[in-house]
Amino acid sequence: MTVLSLSDFKQFSSEKMKKNNLFQTPRFFCDVYGFEPGQVQKGHVHGEQDKIYIVLDGQGTFQVGGEEKVLGSGQAVMAPAGAEHGVRNHTQQRLSVLVFVAPNPS
Amino acid sequence: MTVLSLSDFKQFSSEKMKKNNLFQTPRFFCDVYGFEPGQVQKGHVHGEQDKIYIVLDGQGTFQVGGEEKVLGSGQAVMAPAGAEHGVRNHTQQRLSVLVFVAPNPS
Repeated sequence: MTVLSLSDFKQFSSEKMKKNNLFQTPRFFCDVYGFEPGQVQKGHVHGEQDKIYIVLDGQGTFQVGGEEKVLGSGQAVMAPAGAEHGVRNHTQQRLSVLVFVAPNPS
Repeated sequence: MTVLSLSDFKQFSSEKMKKNNLFQTPRFFCDVYGFEPGQVQKGHVHGEQDKIYIVLDGQGTFQVGGEEKVLGSGQAVMAPAGAEHGVRNHTQQRLSVLVFVAPNPS
């Protein structure tokens, strides 16, 4: 029984948004994404995966389908399979996002 | 694009632990469980689902397999398919837990 602390997974990279994996099985993965100011996860589509984004710290601009909204700490959105989605840290502060994806595409 | 706030899903029931659903698809569901002091989710097994518990507020005693550990806010644990798991709010404060299960058994 491995207990993880989210705070240990709020890691960042100056090069690009950083994906920090907490858990993965064939059925799902759970990451914390770290975005420095200005970093993005470009819009992309998963044909067979649904994804949830939950903001842990900071604010970001989230795109799902043709829409964009600004989410802050404690807010969540789902990108169903087939919907283009992405994230942009438009702020001057770091952004940490909890991410669930199922099933695991890898 | 529906934006949800976790705070709206931290709901409780005096009768038993309350399951508040944020998102569900055939691929997963994501709930916030609310435990009043003393409330439990009894140990149980899913044959084909993996589950993640992440504590949002409070503290609880989490069981996975034969082990029990106390988790607090920001801590997470996974119960893989086949492992007995449950939760007990052994404290005098409310406990809110973010739960992610894949695939959706229903």
